[in-house]
Amino acid sequence: MARRQGSRATVRAIAAEAGVSIATVSRVMNGYVHVSPDTQELVRKAVARLGAPAPARRGAANGAIYVRCPYVLTDYFGVIVSSIAETLDLHGRRVVLSAGDAARETQVLPGLPSDPGIAGAVLVVPPEPEKELEALRAQDFPFVVVDPRTPLPPDIASVSAAHLIAARSVSAHLVALGHRRIGVIGGPGDWLAGQSRLAGHTSALADAGVLPSPELLRSIEPTSEWGYVAACELLDLPDRPTALVAFNDKAAVGALRSAYERGLRIPEDLSITGFDDTYLSRSTVPRLTTVRQPLEEMGRMAVSLLMRLLDRHTVDTLHVELATQLVLRESTGPAPLG
Amino acid sequence: MARRQGSRATVRAIAAEAGVSIATVSRVMNGYVHVSPDTQELVRKAVARLGAPAPARRGAANGAIYVRCPYVLTDYFGVIVSSIAETLDLHGRRVVLSAGDAARETQVLPGLPSDPGIAGAVLVVPPEPEKELEALRAQDFPFVVVDPRTPLPPDIASVSAAHLIAARSVSAHLVALGHRRIGVIGGPGDWLAGQSRLAGHTSALADAGVLPSPELLRSIEPTSEWGYVAACELLDLPDRPTALVAFNDKAAVGALRSAYERGLRIPEDLSITGFDDTYLSRSTVPRLTTVRQPLEEMGRMAVSLLMRLLDRHTVDTLHVELATQLVLRESTGPAPLG
Repeated sequence: MARRQGSRATVRAIAAEAGVSIATVSRVMNGYVHVSPDTQELVRKAVARLGAPAPARRGAANGAIYVRCPYVLTDYFGVIVSSIAETLDLHGRRVVLSAGDAARETQVLPGLPSDPGIAGAVLVVPPEPEKELEALRAQDFPFVVVDPRTPLPPDIASVSAAHLIAARSVSAHLVALGHRRIGVIGGPGDWLAGQSRLAGHTSALADAGVLPSPELLRSIEPTSEWGYVAACELLDLPDRPTALVAFNDKAAVGALRSAYERGLRIPEDLSITGFDDTYLSRSTVPRLTTVRQPLEEMGRMAVSLLMRLLDRHTVDTLHVELATQLVLRESTGPAPLG
Repeated sequence: MARRQGSRATVRAIAAEAGVSIATVSRVMNGYVHVSPDTQELVRKAVARLGAPAPARRGAANGAIYVRCPYVLTDYFGVIVSSIAETLDLHGRRVVLSAGDAARETQVLPGLPSDPGIAGAVLVVPPEPEKELEALRAQDFPFVVVDPRTPLPPDIASVSAAHLIAARSVSAHLVALGHRRIGVIGGPGDWLAGQSRLAGHTSALADAGVLPSPELLRSIEPTSEWGYVAACELLDLPDRPTALVAFNDKAAVGALRSAYERGLRIPEDLSITGFDDTYLSRSTVPRLTTVRQPLEEMGRMAVSLLMRLLDRHTVDTLHVELATQLVLRESTGPAPLG
């Protein structure tokens, strides 16, 4: 293919000429290190034949992606961030990471749009108020929110699990097993995931003609310690629940301990459910019935949306909810006969 | 303080003049976003009074740090990476992250020294052969290895837990409880941590006049599934061990399940120990006796060593081993009477 005069090659044309992917061309053009010398040579020769590609728009082929996940990266956050990092690497993008609990104290968002090295951002459960996210959006800075804490306006892209449907499927499973008096060890009340899941729970109960009872509801920080405390309160009620649904696997583990201390058999005397399908849920005896959140797919989808924002493609559905999967194990069973 | 003629201010002097930390001055000088406008103004005024600091040597005050942890970031790796990220942020350094299992397939190290945006690196359990790490060192590129897989030459900086002493303390605890026939669910045999821990185990047994028995040793991938398989083999031996030491908490969880299926009571019939003190070890019934690895401190120490390498300070002890802590819980008890 002869080099055209007066026009600039596209990245796509160079990729075709070199016999490599578009991402690989981007990597080489950006001086990225993850490319073998042979492949770099192929791309350089193609560029020599076709001419350099047109200069990229801001962030279209350059610039790192700021990934903010201001929490300790463990089973939940760590899996999401790993998936984001792997996917950005496939796109030839550098990941600039901000993570760890201390990162919650630093004010980052206002400076991002003016940072020349940063093309866009993925914000995982951002602790910032909605106002600050809106300000970022108003500056036309491309970013995607994973699992927002609060409801976001329609023009801010977000990815989360389908919390309501997920929680509904757990409670419907318990209702089908005959449970009617179900204790809820819920998440923080000001967290969208907590509110959505509670709505899913009450909708499943309502289908069986049962209205939610405030005495059966606890809102906690989702840790084993708090799960234990909440479970103790619920199991010590005069009219004990026959099942407990916990906000996550950690809280469910605390509930298991509380039941164990009271000599309750799982699931004969009490059913317990978790949420997340982390390693924990497969490590207890009995293993936990739980909900698998598509954490890896959440990371991939967030990057995919971000790439479309960076390319100024139209993004029709800015709020993406991903389906979850109910995982049935040994911690749930028929309600004990009253 | 009057601006000196013909000399350049140090970062330290500017920090003192502005009444802020050296790290804050670095951040402002590098156009970093985590600084409030007021503080930026303080630093700029100090620079106006004292003059700009001398240009930094390569990486002394500029350049991001490449953090490579080519595994899914969960309880172990994620905690280390979070700590590294937090500490680098305190130093005003950007973190460029490479993480996730797919990252093991990419060849990164040879390109790092020529990457203009990267000043140094922290490599967490690098899968690369020692030769490649030595090549990086030969190019005078500053980097620190966290928990090396293989023994490293003395001039490559590394941080790890004191594996041998840690494993010795676990086995000494069991020996003191009367255990002599102890099954070992060890890690991969080609991993330095696995070899060191085995040495610690045999040294504790030798103190009690017992030599290691090959039939009591298994080498596995440290997961619950493999821990379960190895424990089943060990517990089905004609002369069953009275205790099992597992390479990590995950493997110990698999061992617990195997014991549970065989109707063995923990710790009355069998003692089991983990390693890592992750969330898992506090979530089982009974909770696991285990070893706390100082994961956060490993991250902080790695960054501290790297900063000294970047500043061309003398680093005397390039191999740092951090003390661990034996955590006694309910999964260990006196050896059953033969």
